[in-house]
Order: sequence, then C-alpha cells, then structure tokens
Amino acid sequence: MSFLVQSIDGDAEQWRSLLHAALPDHTIRVYPDDLDDPASVRHALVWQPPAGLLASLPNLEAIFSMGAGVDHILRDPELPADVPIVRLADAGLRQGMVEYVTLAVLRHHRALRGYIEQQAQRRWAEIPVPLAGGRRVGILGLGELGQACATALAGLGFDVAGWARTPKQVPGVTTHAGTDGLETLLARSDILVCLLPLTDATRGILNRTTLEKLPPGACVVNVARGQHLVQPDLLALLDSGHLAGATLDVTDPEPLPAADPLWAHPRVLVTPHVAAPTKPESAVPEIAGNVRRLARGEPPAPIVNRNTGY
Amino acid sequence: MSFLVQSIDGDAEQWRSLLHAALPDHTIRVYPDDLDDPASVRHALVWQPPAGLLASLPNLEAIFSMGAGVDHILRDPELPADVPIVRLADAGLRQGMVEYVTLAVLRHHRALRGYIEQQAQRRWAEIPVPLAGGRRVGILGLGELGQACATALAGLGFDVAGWARTPKQVPGVTTHAGTDGLETLLARSDILVCLLPLTDATRGILNRTTLEKLPPGACVVNVARGQHLVQPDLLALLDSGHLAGATLDVTDPEPLPAADPLWAHPRVLVTPHVAAPTKPESAVPEIAGNVRRLARGEPPAPIVNRNTGY
Repeated sequence: MSFLVQSIDGDAEQWRSLLHAALPDHTIRVYPDDLDDPASVRHALVWQPPAGLLASLPNLEAIFSMGAGVDHILRDPELPADVPIVRLADAGLRQGMVEYVTLAVLRHHRALRGYIEQQAQRRWAEIPVPLAGGRRVGILGLGELGQACATALAGLGFDVAGWARTPKQVPGVTTHAGTDGLETLLARSDILVCLLPLTDATRGILNRTTLEKLPPGACVVNVARGQHLVQPDLLALLDSGHLAGATLDVTDPEPLPAADPLWAHPRVLVTPHVAAPTKPESAVPEIAGNVRRLARGEPPAPIVNRNTGY
Repeated sequence: MSFLVQSIDGDAEQWRSLLHAALPDHTIRVYPDDLDDPASVRHALVWQPPAGLLASLPNLEAIFSMGAGVDHILRDPELPADVPIVRLADAGLRQGMVEYVTLAVLRHHRALRGYIEQQAQRRWAEIPVPLAGGRRVGILGLGELGQACATALAGLGFDVAGWARTPKQVPGVTTHAGTDGLETLLARSDILVCLLPLTDATRGILNRTTLEKLPPGACVVNVARGQHLVQPDLLALLDSGHLAGATLDVTDPEPLPAADPLWAHPRVLVTPHVAAPTKPESAVPEIAGNVRRLARGEPPAPIVNRNTGY
C-alpha cells in the first residue's frame, strides 16, 4: 500500500519523511521519480497533476489537493469519476492567508504606497486616511479562508461584509449571497478581497463590469486564482483613475511573463503566489488524519462537491 | 471661562466647533489668533507649547496634551508646577496606533520590501518566512498604546513579549521589567516595537549597545519619539548587516531634514509621524469628559506623574 506525493518545490524529502512518520503502514512514493507500481497507490497528494496521472492509478481511494483550491485537479479530462477529492484546510494555510490579507488591506488602507513615494521625494506630509471603522472591506468567498480573513479584519476594526454564492453566517460580518448580493457588496467595498474558488461560475468574475461597480478610489486584492481577474480590465480601470490600487498574489499565467504590464504598474503590487504556501509540517497531520478516517470507513473532510467545483 | 486650544495643523475651526458643542459653558479660544484674555483661560489643549505660554495663564486648572506623549509639555522650563497635566488616551488614538504597528510588523514579517524589490526586477520567487507563531515580537512600553498593540499582535498569532520599567500584566503576552528584563526582551525580539514615553530614562534607549542585543536579522519599528533612537547607530547596524530593516514614524528632528541619510536608505521606511494622528472627533469627547470631572471636583485621567514623566 503506497501514498503518492507529487513534488513541486524541491521539498520531496520533507514530504516523504513527514508522511512516513505519520503513515508508517504506507510506502511513500514521490512522483515522478519513484512511481514504479501504480497499482499499489491508494492515496495521492497532488498539485496541477498531469492529465491522466490519476487515471493511471487503478486502486486510488482518495485524491488530496496540495492547496485549498482544486481547480488544478478538476481540469484533468481523465479525472477518475468515483474517487473522492479532498481539499486542504489546515490551520497553517488559514494563518498564512490571514497574515497576507491583513497586510494587503492595511497597506491600501494606510496609504503605504503613497508614503513610499513621498520618501523617495524626501517629502514629509500626512496623507489623510480614516480609521478602519470608516473603511469598507468586501470579501468575495466565505469558505474557510474567506471567513478567517473576514473575522480577522473585523477584529481589527474594519467595516467588513462578505459574499458567497449561497447564504452564509459569519459573526461580526454582514453577508450577501447570489447575483443581487454581489452588486450590493461591490457597491460598498472600498477594498475588495477575492478568496473565491475558481469554477466556471467565477472565472473572470473580476472584470470591467463588476470592477466599475466598486466605489471610485477602491482597491482590489486577489489571493485566489489569476483567472478570476481579467487583467486588462484591471489595468484600464487603474489608468482611468476609477481604481486606486491592486495587490495580486496570483496571476494568469504564473509565473507572470516578464513582458506583462502588471510588473511595472506603479499602483500594482505583484507577489509570486505566496500568500498561503502549503507547509508540509501543518498539512501532513491534516492529510494523515483523513487517511485514517478512510481506513475506518469514515468520509474525509473537506470533500469536494464536483458539481459546484469546490 | 475659556478653553484654549493650540492650532497646529490648520484644523482650528474643527476643534473650535467640536469643543464648543461639547463644552457650551466655555468660550473656545484658538492660540495664537484669539488669546485676548489670558486670565479667563481655565483649560488649555496644547502640542509643543512655546515656553512660557502655560505660565502666562494665571487661572489655569488643567493642561491637556494633544497626543499620548507629554514630553513636549514637560520640557517647558516655565511649566506651572501645580497644574495637572492630562494625557490623551482616546480610542481613536489607540486604533490608529494598532493599525500602523500591525502594518509595520506584518511588512517586516512577510518580507514586503523584498517582494517590492523583486517586482522591480520582474522576478517571481518565494521569500521563505515562518508563520507568525514563529516570529518573536517585542514591545517596549506597556502603557495604553503598547498594551493595545501587544494584544492585537498576539491575536494575529505572533509570539509577543513586552517590557516596561515596572511590572505589568497583559493577557496572552509575556512581560518583563527593569534592566535585566530589557536584556531578556531584546535577546528574543525578531521585531522590536518602541512605544515608550520619552523621559530622561528612555532618551536614546535604542542605541548601538541595545540594538546589538537583538538577534541577527532583527527589525526595529519606532512609533514613539525620534529621540528614543540614536539614528547613526541604527544606520551602522543596518549597514553591518546585523539589522535587516526599520520602520520609523518618528525622527529627530521632525520633519526629517532633506539631507538626512535615513530618507535614502533602502531598508528604512520613513513616515511623517502619522501612526496615530489625534482626531478631534474622538479626542473632544474624552477631553470634555475630563473638563466635567474637574468641574465636579474629581480628578481627570490619565493624569501625568511628573516624577516618571508619563
């Protein structure tokens, strides 16, 4: 019985040793180097698996995503139809996302870019900003990560609202749902944070039509997937002055090509998909717990609904 | 009976109208424009008052500071000896400071400067950082502002400790006191935040000797007073590589002169004393409440101890 892990960042040996310690009954195999017996693989932990890889494992019992999103798995046209897919929802991922989103929102809120520009000019002048209670933050997506970020920002004093496809309750946060709810959320968001899953319904959701509904001077933070955002529409609205700034941790494609105009835009911060990196030390206990649940005949969690795509 | 307010930022009319509404029995006078009857002044709200101004008000019952610190009042050699001095401790000041310090700590913690540099080079590469629980933050000063910042940072998951001259208790925060405690705090602070009052005991407390006790690669955030920091010592330790960065909201002098090397240092962020600007709308209710307490014969709060200087 073996557990297959796809190595993406040169951290194969860390995954191997942590998984080995957590799952002593499994042989840990790292793809692509040592997959010599596909029939032995019961569980696979993957990130952007090559099309057909999962279909080539005849005895697969569960597919684990190496991140919170699963769009990178669902796009495989040969994806086995009856194997459960499990999202990653560990505390480390949540913590990393809360830190990054809090930093991104505070950076826009407290005019950090403006102060850095003034420093280059040796200029000593206050840029007036309201307190957080006077700043309306809108969170798109109220899954584990969206809820954690909304709660943290409300705790810091921001006026936070959130939106999801279906109604959700988050203490201290006004929530909206559905198409009408999205319009309401956009119209009141000085800083909009995208934490949606990438599905056919959310691809390109940040486009000229939706971004124009934000109040003038709004800022956009995308920490979900690059394909949520129509990058030329963002640039047009920054250049028209409707939007004041953007923080993009994800782009389309990744890495962002050297010729892309986002790199040099003075009001865009680009970071290389680092908001919430998966850390083997916090992911492995979560994944091993799910493997043991499966062995006892219990369902793993959180399991992906293939109809909604998350 | 009049209330004298010193106008510093061109916001005299906002102070006048809010104070007038809150204290209808007082005539509100703005210094220097309309101080025509010094004997009528019972209360004065000041920021860096000219030496002798307060002594020229023979019937003064209380001196209110326009900020949390009072060093700018205590340095007046003609300061009346028997008039109580009241610090500002309103919720808006606390909120502004928590926002700024959280932003400054997260900026260092999440390597924002490094990512901005990489963006200029169109470079897509992760800069590894620990989660907040693996980052040790040290807060110097555990007054209202220091405690609020320590609590907020602990809430975000940082490993927070604090130091004050005398022992203090802050839930969720390890605290140290006295000279030995300062050494302990310095030795464990990856990010050091100065929120001390400026007194003879704290002037120059951030110097070569103390800053060398921080772990290699530490960062310094000063949001207290410029005179807490020996600026050439900071620059020497940044250039030696012992310190990785600094965020300075206060400098000595202010504004920072155009020729000062801090402006152009790539690892220093300078902001123009804007961490927690005094907002008339949140300060006036606090001040008016103290005026009413004085009228009932009760002590105002928080009152300054002239021996300790805060």
